[in-house]
Amino acid sequence: MDEAALRELLAAVRDGRTSPDAALTRLARLPFADLGHTKVDHHRTLRQGLPEAVYGPGKTPDQCAAIVAELLAHGTGPVLLTRTDDAQVLAAVERNPGGAQTGRTVVWRSAPSRPAAVAVVSAGTADEAVADECDATLVAHGVHPTRVRDVGVAGLHRLLASLDDVTDVDAVVVVAGMEGALASVVGGLTAAPVVAVPTSTGYGSAFEGVTALLSMVSSCASGITVVGIDNGFGAACAVLRLLNGRSRHG
Amino acid sequence: MDEAALRELLAAVRDGRTSPDAALTRLARLPFADLGHTKVDHHRTLRQGLPEAVYGPGKTPDQCAAIVAELLAHGTGPVLLTRTDDAQVLAAVERNPGGAQTGRTVVWRSAPSRPAAVAVVSAGTADEAVADECDATLVAHGVHPTRVRDVGVAGLHRLLASLDDVTDVDAVVVVAGMEGALASVVGGLTAAPVVAVPTSTGYGSAFEGVTALLSMVSSCASGITVVGIDNGFGAACAVLRLLNGRSRHG
Amino acid sequence: MDEAALRELLAAVRDGRTSPDAALTRLARLPFADLGHTKVDHHRTLRQGLPEAVYGPGKTPDQCAAIVAELLAHGTGPVLLTRTDDAQVLAAVERNPGGAQTGRTVVWRSAPSRPAAVAVVSAGTADEAVADECDATLVAHGVHPTRVRDVGVAGLHRLLASLDDVTDVDAVVVVAGMEGALASVVGGLTAAPVVAVPTSTGYGSAFEGVTALLSMVSSCASGITVVGIDNGFGAACAVLRLLNGRSRHG
Amino acid sequence: MDEAALRELLAAVRDGRTSPDAALTRLARLPFADLGHTKVDHHRTLRQGLPEAVYGPGKTPDQCAAIVAELLAHGTGPVLLTRTDDAQVLAAVERNPGGAQTGRTVVWRSAPSRPAAVAVVSAGTADEAVADECDATLVAHGVHPTRVRDVGVAGLHRLLASLDDVTDVDAVVVVAGMEGALASVVGGLTAAPVVAVPTSTGYGSAFEGVTALLSMVSSCASGITVVGIDNGFGAACAVLRLLNGRSRHG
Amino acid sequence: MDEAALRELLAAVRDGRTSPDAALTRLARLPFADLGHTKVDHHRTLRQGLPEAVYGPGKTPDQCAAIVAELLAHGTGPVLLTRTDDAQVLAAVERNPGGAQTGRTVVWRSAPSRPAAVAVVSAGTADEAVADECDATLVAHGVHPTRVRDVGVAGLHRLLASLDDVTDVDAVVVVAGMEGALASVVGGLTAAPVVAVPTSTGYGSAFEGVTALLSMVSSCASGITVVGIDNGFGAACAVLRLLNGRSRHG
Amino acid sequence: MDEAALRELLAAVRDGRTSPDAALTRLARLPFADLGHTKVDHHRTLRQGLPEAVYGPGKTPDQCAAIVAELLAHGTGPVLLTRTDDAQVLAAVERNPGGAQTGRTVVWRSAPSRPAAVAVVSAGTADEAVADECDATLVAHGVHPTRVRDVGVAGLHRLLASLDDVTDVDAVVVVAGMEGALASVVGGLTAAPVVAVPTSTGYGSAFEGVTALLSMVSSCASGITVVGIDNGFGAACAVLRLLNGRSRHG
Amino acid sequence: MDEAALRELLAAVRDGRTSPDAALTRLARLPFADLGHTKVDHHRTLRQGLPEAVYGPGKTPDQCAAIVAELLAHGTGPVLLTRTDDAQVLAAVERNPGGAQTGRTVVWRSAPSRPAAVAVVSAGTADEAVADECDATLVAHGVHPTRVRDVGVAGLHRLLASLDDVTDVDAVVVVAGMEGALASVVGGLTAAPVVAVPTSTGYGSAFEGVTALLSMVSSCASGITVVGIDNGFGAACAVLRLLNGRSRHG
Amino acid sequence: MDEAALRELLAAVRDGRTSPDAALTRLARLPFADLGHTKVDHHRTLRQGLPEAVYGPGKTPDQCAAIVAELLAHGTGPVLLTRTDDAQVLAAVERNPGGAQTGRTVVWRSAPSRPAAVAVVSAGTADEAVADECDATLVAHGVHPTRVRDVGVAGLHRLLASLDDVTDVDAVVVVAGMEGALASVVGGLTAAPVVAVPTSTGYGSAFEGVTALLSMVSSCASGITVVGIDNGFGAACAVLRLLNGRSRHG
Repeated sequence: MDEAALRELLAAVRDGRTSPDAALTRLARLPFADLGHTKVDHHRTLRQGLPEAVYGPGKTPDQCAAIVAELLAHGTGPVLLTRTDDAQVLAAVERNPGGAQTGRTVVWRSAPSRPAAVAVVSAGTADEAVADECDATLVAHGVHPTRVRDVGVAGLHRLLASLDDVTDVDAVVVVAGMEGALASVVGGLTAAPVVAVPTSTGYGSAFEGVTALLSMVSSCASGITVVGIDNGFGAACAVLRLLNGRSRHG
Repeated sequence: MDEAALRELLAAVRDGRTSPDAALTRLARLPFADLGHTKVDHHRTLRQGLPEAVYGPGKTPDQCAAIVAELLAHGTGPVLLTRTDDAQVLAAVERNPGGAQTGRTVVWRSAPSRPAAVAVVSAGTADEAVADECDATLVAHGVHPTRVRDVGVAGLHRLLASLDDVTDVDAVVVVAGMEGALASVVGGLTAAPVVAVPTSTGYGSAFEGVTALLSMVSSCASGITVVGIDNGFGAACAVLRLLNGRSRHG
Repeated sequence: MDEAALRELLAAVRDGRTSPDAALTRLARLPFADLGHTKVDHHRTLRQGLPEAVYGPGKTPDQCAAIVAELLAHGTGPVLLTRTDDAQVLAAVERNPGGAQTGRTVVWRSAPSRPAAVAVVSAGTADEAVADECDATLVAHGVHPTRVRDVGVAGLHRLLASLDDVTDVDAVVVVAGMEGALASVVGGLTAAPVVAVPTSTGYGSAFEGVTALLSMVSSCASGITVVGIDNGFGAACAVLRLLNGRSRHG
Repeated sequence: MDEAALRELLAAVRDGRTSPDAALTRLARLPFADLGHTKVDHHRTLRQGLPEAVYGPGKTPDQCAAIVAELLAHGTGPVLLTRTDDAQVLAAVERNPGGAQTGRTVVWRSAPSRPAAVAVVSAGTADEAVADECDATLVAHGVHPTRVRDVGVAGLHRLLASLDDVTDVDAVVVVAGMEGALASVVGGLTAAPVVAVPTSTGYGSAFEGVTALLSMVSSCASGITVVGIDNGFGAACAVLRLLNGRSRHG
Repeated sequence: MDEAALRELLAAVRDGRTSPDAALTRLARLPFADLGHTKVDHHRTLRQGLPEAVYGPGKTPDQCAAIVAELLAHGTGPVLLTRTDDAQVLAAVERNPGGAQTGRTVVWRSAPSRPAAVAVVSAGTADEAVADECDATLVAHGVHPTRVRDVGVAGLHRLLASLDDVTDVDAVVVVAGMEGALASVVGGLTAAPVVAVPTSTGYGSAFEGVTALLSMVSSCASGITVVGIDNGFGAACAVLRLLNGRSRHG
Repeated sequence: MDEAALRELLAAVRDGRTSPDAALTRLARLPFADLGHTKVDHHRTLRQGLPEAVYGPGKTPDQCAAIVAELLAHGTGPVLLTRTDDAQVLAAVERNPGGAQTGRTVVWRSAPSRPAAVAVVSAGTADEAVADECDATLVAHGVHPTRVRDVGVAGLHRLLASLDDVTDVDAVVVVAGMEGALASVVGGLTAAPVVAVPTSTGYGSAFEGVTALLSMVSSCASGITVVGIDNGFGAACAVLRLLNGRSRHG
Repeated sequence: MDEAALRELLAAVRDGRTSPDAALTRLARLPFADLGHTKVDHHRTLRQGLPEAVYGPGKTPDQCAAIVAELLAHGTGPVLLTRTDDAQVLAAVERNPGGAQTGRTVVWRSAPSRPAAVAVVSAGTADEAVADECDATLVAHGVHPTRVRDVGVAGLHRLLASLDDVTDVDAVVVVAGMEGALASVVGGLTAAPVVAVPTSTGYGSAFEGVTALLSMVSSCASGITVVGIDNGFGAACAVLRLLNGRSRHG
Repeated sequence: MDEAALRELLAAVRDGRTSPDAALTRLARLPFADLGHTKVDHHRTLRQGLPEAVYGPGKTPDQCAAIVAELLAHGTGPVLLTRTDDAQVLAAVERNPGGAQTGRTVVWRSAPSRPAAVAVVSAGTADEAVADECDATLVAHGVHPTRVRDVGVAGLHRLLASLDDVTDVDAVVVVAGMEGALASVVGGLTAAPVVAVPTSTGYGSAFEGVTALLSMVSSCASGITVVGIDNGFGAACAVLRLLNGRSRHG
């Protein structure tokens, strides 16, 4: 049943051609039917508070450029292209001017700044690419995080020296590979929400992020939550979800 | 407290403007030195917004009773005893009257109700024990969640019928075993923060929760976060972390 | 929006109090809303062709008895209680007379026999419990399978002696633990659909069914499909799905 | 014992040179002996209803071309070359004109169209290559599937908008990576047979398809069956097995 | 086609009622058909050189007793009941007198001694049960192995003191848990065939035998072969396979 | 060649019955032969600096008592019985008076105290049993460790308050389950040797110690070493190895 | 103590300068000491019956050539260079003429043919490289195996047609990837020793040989033994070990 | 510094006995507050006894050169660049003259030799790169290890011939891949501390070092400790930790 059919059904009710009961019967079948929306993406945005990002790997430069163009044409919010290679960036930016690149992420139509205190804490230089993806995603939505870098737990004093950055904030994202212990330590030092991102950094027994992932979901610090390996984008989305709610209340 | 403030404090002591005792009080707050506090736990509570719960398994009934007593004596917030067996409950409640049991969790000194809209969504009856632990932990801190039960994705219409319960809320906890798909579906339907709890429910290939855990951290719904297998307590703590922040802003 | 509200909206259209356009706007919000069905389960049955079975483990005897009673009261098809223990059977049958037990499965209101040729092939005696669950589920829906037992590939001649049983049929279910090779062998001998069930049978390196599961999904026989470990019920449902379709065409 | 020897034995029986009992003794030894068929492949085709496909990886272009040629010379059904690279396609098509390429699959001698309603549902663009392999294999055998694309569960409304495509069909193939939740959702929406294909798509914790595989075999939707990771060809074969049976009945 | 039908076919050929060609056509379909042997088990014994053993776990005492009785009635070789519990032993021996128990294995009708030099080497006392199963299986077939006990590689001198026992033999079985290093060490010291049995012995990181299994199949000593975890019976069968061949040649 | 044979060979050389060259040829075959020592264990003790402990699980009380008796009769150093149950303790102590029990470890003939500063740091109460085993093993050899308890990284201030206990010592043993982050934190705070013991403590995703094990071997703190899961005895042995060397140098 | 010192000690005994008892005391310390053999490799060959092969990967062409040269200079048996690339072959053969290449293996100084019946059975064309390595290693030692190719269990009739090749032999090597079911089937058809080699062939869920490895060690066919993934060389060595023993007896 | 000392210090400031500056200096040593240190790295060195090494992978040549320069400018101890590629070496050495390369490690400002007996024992040529990293790290700190090469347990006599090298030393590092059995054997032969390094060497079932890792942590030789896969640097650090302590005592 598309929109026209629905409109016709209602007209029939209005005109007395169909009884409300008969219409009810038909409408009862609606819950999973196609109402022929032409603004699916707009609806989805409302529902999620986040526009869809384009994940680069496996797409041709042309595909990247085209999808970005389509998203820009049908919305008003930020559009992201993530995990790009140089050819994808080139094609996407040529076709869609105005994209700003941070690390392997390109953002078009960034949202204006909003007041929010978020820390992105990373354990080592090898975790920076993932932290950058998180950072770029936040910035695209108007959130400018504080970066706390190179504070692996083997040098605890460095983290303690930045303690204020993780305690008096709306949320903390912890990005760490190897054994991922940083998430537990930060979780024990702050009452703020902590989103942990395991990274695929580390020697052989880090197993491409599995060790950090298991470590983080087993953390002895209560209330830490975890996203997928190397998923800086996902961590940013988790933060945006909670900030969105906070705005509503604020 | 930075170096200048410390220097000024010392100058004030020298000049008699501040007594050594008053200075001591301030210095005692230097976060990590061992200054002989006798109220470590109170500090910890401030830092985390959550008192420590007592995890039952592996402790004798007497140990459970004693630790609960100690925590009740040194604080004012809620005290929880989790994953108890009957003997532990008996001992703990006998020694510490006033404990209220929900499932395998006992709570003393629950916090008064606070305004917060949280949904605890569970996939099947086998997930209820974990959802109960989450529920009891939230209630202990004054948050009374809406329970949405038995909405596994194999019967999608049941979840859709409860859609409002997961969209217009401060946070959603999704508790699911087997393949854990419910977390992705809920994540796609709501803009609220989603905390997913994999459970050890299911046939052989659910592997005691591993399948659900991997499924949830790999979710295609952006911004879902995950806690450990069967960790209903942890999910509640994650929700409390974000509500605490929200209160601050509200 | 519940049914009453929808009825009222349609009445308003009929009476001219609401224009079709205004009604359309409201209805456009319907797709995920609760229409207040009272016959959810009946709908679900139509959609799946299979009533819901009650999975015993983790439920009290009383819960089992009550759920079975509820399902019997609200439908006309077969009702199953699976993986029961003796106490569950006792309680369920006492409250709901007429249940027929096969292995650890109890069935009420079995469907009349239907013409369908299905073989349930099992490798060893240790696989019989899983094969029995599959058999009982099929019988509940009117399908009486041929059982081919004890035809592990270490004694290939026994399988070859039963070759007709697996070639001229509508479907074959293969139940095997250890290395699960039987699925590949049967898959190479028949053009019929093959549903493989890995079982948790076997010595230490069978790893509770994991070896058989991996073996079956990696089978060199094209077009074999697999269900979860020990999931005889699921295999029967897969067969029923394809038989349902076949009836429609026949 | 080859065909000539068997013929001679029978002639000896006819001529009285050998008694039936003596012949019986010899024949009793036959079950595993070589009868010297020269039409092994033809027999195999009858038995399986599917000709053998040539799996490209690890073969030289010349080997691919030669095996395709041999298969074309000794049969009448469709011949497939799968998972090809460009050099393999070039060599195979040069030597064997008439091959039609779809994605990384080349098909010779496609079967004429047959009436069958099959849906191939894919979660995201990264799953398209696997869905294409399934599609091409089906088309080779005369089955033209409906493609439903980009209906990942994070955007449930898109799947619901295509609901008819998965409910009123002979079979549904679900192709999904990451957490593979789409299989469960589709399984809950349709009574048709569902064959799920986990793909190696997704971030780090998707583990090259393992997460989706485990998720699908643990599905809470009853009667879903699963093939190996990325095995679009296998899923098509599973569908063809059930359609073959259906034709027999139809 | 059963034996009677085959006999009738041959009679028809003899009598001229059926031509050899027509008979050939029918016989060509034989390779996988049932010839109605009544001595299947005897054939199987010839083919494998090993009678079937009864694996105790999961069988009732009565089932054990019955299967042993059946095997004793239909053959002349040794019959084994393995991994028994006390009730199974009691039932089986009561019904079938003459069984001799070694560890958890009972043997009826042991074969007479045969000349063969086999060493069963075990690393620690916790591996003895598996070594005993291997020993009992060998003895049942007339092979009396030399036992070399408690020669874990942490005390290498003990193994070196027994060097002759592993060098001048027909085969060596190495039974070891934990890290399973003993297999590599023995493999480097002898030119005899080495069959390694990983056991589920050891602390937590031995992972129920997985560590030893992986260690043994990765051994740097060339030509070591491995059977399943705790599979002392299988190791004995492997030794018997090679001794059988040796007898043929000797 | 036993001792008598060797003595005879040397006598033959002395008497001129055998030439030195011929004797050399025979002796060249010695390296792996049995020289018939009667003091094997004494040698072994010298080589390892540690007597053999008796691992309780899987042994009968009588076996435990007998092995302890044997070890006491043939040496002068400490004898340990580890991971005992009550029946084993009873039998062993009855037969061998003077055993001192600590947790599940019993020690006879403890060594006199020696000067050594060792810290045993444990994360939570659930890790105490493993820490106790380590402690008891050290004490048996005269090393009395400082215990630092309940210093999980979620409450970092507690560890920092005990900082001196882990910095100015000969060795630190860290005992932790869950995510095992404590090992990394301690490793970053001290220059002393750190031996980490993963324990099987924790919720479902701790996977019986696997998470902690992987975490510890992947630690970002350089130079931490790890022993097996729950292996408190092994950690103590590692410490004793390094103290033994230290004594030699001191 | 080197050879000269030992010779001097014996001379001192002969000359009466040292008593046999004093010499005995010194010699008792010998078992692990270096006797200064200059023919270590010769000894090793005797002990193992197999010369050391050179494993190519990770070595430079020059290193390969040099090691082969050294081995040729110090022995008389066959020398192998395995898993080579083209540059390694070129360098090795240029410096050491007379090498014969089979697949990725080069052999110098092959042993003369010896009477032995060995079958190398492979499941598919993707397994041929591993089967070739096994074949080349056997040929190097004078054993010319029968090759049975492309007999995957999905086409069982092909294996049955070669039945004699696997039943009347001294040993069978089974090389198979994917689900490795071929090993079980062959094991059930022959009484000969069976050495199974899992290969890293197959779709995603074959997991680089893990599935086949687990399948083979869990085989329901008793007495099958397994070597490491893709280890064709190891399988050949296992066969040579048993043939060596057989020769001794024959 | 305890509370009394702090109170006394403040009183001294008040009384003019201590200047605020002097007090500040003492307070600045309160271990973890951020007091604006500019010499963090120096502190860290004291605490750990090891300067930070630069891990090459993932860094650009320029980054490597710059970090090395910074470390050289702010300390006096050795600086290491590990796991380099040629471009990194070139850039780093050009900017920072005086670097000495060993394998893939470059060292600046090596410490003078110190007396310490350390053995680095490696199983095969494929383990040399890891052993080299360990060796270079030790040498950078003045420790010149004895190398014992190519002593895999399959040729035990070679290890026994070098027995003195592993028994009379301060520490032994064992580097081994495949099944890692060498660690157990060495651990049984020496009373010295043993640090085991699993390497990613070996055939398919070595699983990139996992087999060796599990084998080593499950070792039957008491008191062996383990570092991460291929972590030669970490093993050297573990040795340096214990030597540092030893110097203190010596």
